[in-house]
Amino acid sequence: MDTINSISYPVIFKDTLTQLVNFIEQGNYSRFFILTDEHTGEHCLPLLQERLEHLNNSYDVIEVNAGEESKNIDFCAGIWKMLIDFGADRHSLMINLGGGVIGDMGGFAASTYKRGIDFVQVPTTLLSQVDASVGGKTGIDFDNLKNIIGTFTQPKAVFIEPAFLQTLPQRQILSGYAEMLKHGLIQDAAYWSELKGADINAAPAPELVYQSVAIKNKVVVDDPFEKGFRKCLNFGHTVGHAVETYSLLNDGSKHLTHGEAIAIGMICEAWLSHKNAGLTTDELNEITTVLNNLYPRYELDETCHSVLHSLMKTDKKNQNGNINCTLLNKIGECSIDHICTEEELCDSLRYYAGL
Amino acid sequence: MDTINSISYPVIFKDTLTQLVNFIEQGNYSRFFILTDEHTGEHCLPLLQERLEHLNNSYDVIEVNAGEESKNIDFCAGIWKMLIDFGADRHSLMINLGGGVIGDMGGFAASTYKRGIDFVQVPTTLLSQVDASVGGKTGIDFDNLKNIIGTFTQPKAVFIEPAFLQTLPQRQILSGYAEMLKHGLIQDAAYWSELKGADINAAPAPELVYQSVAIKNKVVVDDPFEKGFRKCLNFGHTVGHAVETYSLLNDGSKHLTHGEAIAIGMICEAWLSHKNAGLTTDELNEITTVLNNLYPRYELDETCHSVLHSLMKTDKKNQNGNINCTLLNKIGECSIDHICTEEELCDSLRYYAGL
Repeated sequence: MDTINSISYPVIFKDTLTQLVNFIEQGNYSRFFILTDEHTGEHCLPLLQERLEHLNNSYDVIEVNAGEESKNIDFCAGIWKMLIDFGADRHSLMINLGGGVIGDMGGFAASTYKRGIDFVQVPTTLLSQVDASVGGKTGIDFDNLKNIIGTFTQPKAVFIEPAFLQTLPQRQILSGYAEMLKHGLIQDAAYWSELKGADINAAPAPELVYQSVAIKNKVVVDDPFEKGFRKCLNFGHTVGHAVETYSLLNDGSKHLTHGEAIAIGMICEAWLSHKNAGLTTDELNEITTVLNNLYPRYELDETCHSVLHSLMKTDKKNQNGNINCTLLNKIGECSIDHICTEEELCDSLRYYAGL
Repeated sequence: MDTINSISYPVIFKDTLTQLVNFIEQGNYSRFFILTDEHTGEHCLPLLQERLEHLNNSYDVIEVNAGEESKNIDFCAGIWKMLIDFGADRHSLMINLGGGVIGDMGGFAASTYKRGIDFVQVPTTLLSQVDASVGGKTGIDFDNLKNIIGTFTQPKAVFIEPAFLQTLPQRQILSGYAEMLKHGLIQDAAYWSELKGADINAAPAPELVYQSVAIKNKVVVDDPFEKGFRKCLNFGHTVGHAVETYSLLNDGSKHLTHGEAIAIGMICEAWLSHKNAGLTTDELNEITTVLNNLYPRYELDETCHSVLHSLMKTDKKNQNGNINCTLLNKIGECSIDHICTEEELCDSLRYYAGL
């Protein structure tokens, strides 16, 4: 349980900060840059800087505002500008120290600066450790669409440090937990069973994080550019992404975390799976109960259906205007490219609303 | 002389518009988009649209302003927005119909939209046909730096149509001619000799364009990510890019074309080659005479040296703050990674100024 080998890079779970420092030392980089936000700058950066004290390499810290609202082209341009001003050349290294926003946007900025400089991911939230850390997706939001602009670019390494999870609020832990539950639902029934009984008030055991990364990694290694089966990771995300965006756009409602929105999406898409893909009534009830108990309720009345449907139509996995869903055949097994109609999708929202 | 096979795609020289239409028909694209500027929209698009009339596929035209000033993140965002508004999905195709700005920016927009959609290049200027058409470099200017943001992404095909060159002003022909002369200088003495005696008042014969693409292609296929010898294509560009940017920034002077600036750069770097890399006095004189006769003079007095040197320091091929030049060992042969000092670079500018 030390290292997982991904597409072209290692995901390191043991002695991560020491190994990160070794990586920097051995990489012969002209200089390096640490991208943080105010949270990771306060809680995570000091742990890393302690280890960097004896290094000869000079580095600079680039801090952006925390939160999804920062993950746009203006903040990305700010990172590019800092890299230019700090004299970053093609032999520079970017260290993305943070959650999904830092990893996605830092990866995008690095993959496009001077046509690409090396970067490593140091995910500091549970969500980014189990989800964004492998797969090579970089991106920013644009025109109110999540990750609509980005690249497939692999990091040089990923460092998963359990200590960073200790400072996370419970709500952030729960957000990451949703992706772990998804990994169980789409690929591993035993893992789902183990997780649904776990204590989710604290950070999960490192073994559980490792297992989630291993499940996701197997999928992305087989399909790095999301031409086929990688779309299985999209379970819960067709509806979930739309609900998440809706909650961010709609000032009247509270903003959902990614995991809270995906939990709603998984309930709706489990209902669609029951209707169209063979998921049994018992399994649907089990999934619904587990997720509905873990995650807060969110109001989705009829008035928001047309907005949500429009948002679903912008999903990157769609083709020819049809909305493509990944559905469960049973717990632990799924299939991709199920075309769902507007009526079916709205019915799934009604199922959630009626719980 | 029909097709050159590049990194992962063909460069097509024969029946190009017919072959482009075949490519679209066979590609099973959900829809396609043609990126133009007002010049190619007027002079080139009608030739293509004639052929598209019988196609069933629907398409949209996206037009941006012509000129290097448009090659920035704002115009790129405009292209992204149009793609979203037109409902472009991952199975869409972008056809970049234009010169270097259209090809570079259209390639960047396509390579980052939804993490990458297919694109083809249809270069319409001599410069873009012999230079930007192969190599997979996409990019935009940012913070007054040319192509500082971009990706290495290969097009699906390149279509080189001689008819488009017939509508080009003489100054644009001459601009492309500079890159062709460079191809001879760095790789093929016989080609240099043939070119220096050619009539450059008209578009060059298709065979000459083919030869230039073949020389460049051989270099980029061996080194797609510019880790090593591909830097040979940079001959004339360390000084030339700085002079070009200077001429665009400096309102008091006229704007140089890329070729005009590169011609100055090649004279300066031929002088550096004589000093540091073995180029003989006779060869230096020959290169200087040919280029100085073909291209207009440009004033570069002492006052601009420090600005030019600062601009050279931002070159993407530099490392550890040193300025890296590609120099000629003799006509038809070059070597990369010559570190040149500020004094040497300024002396080379003085050599040009003193002609």
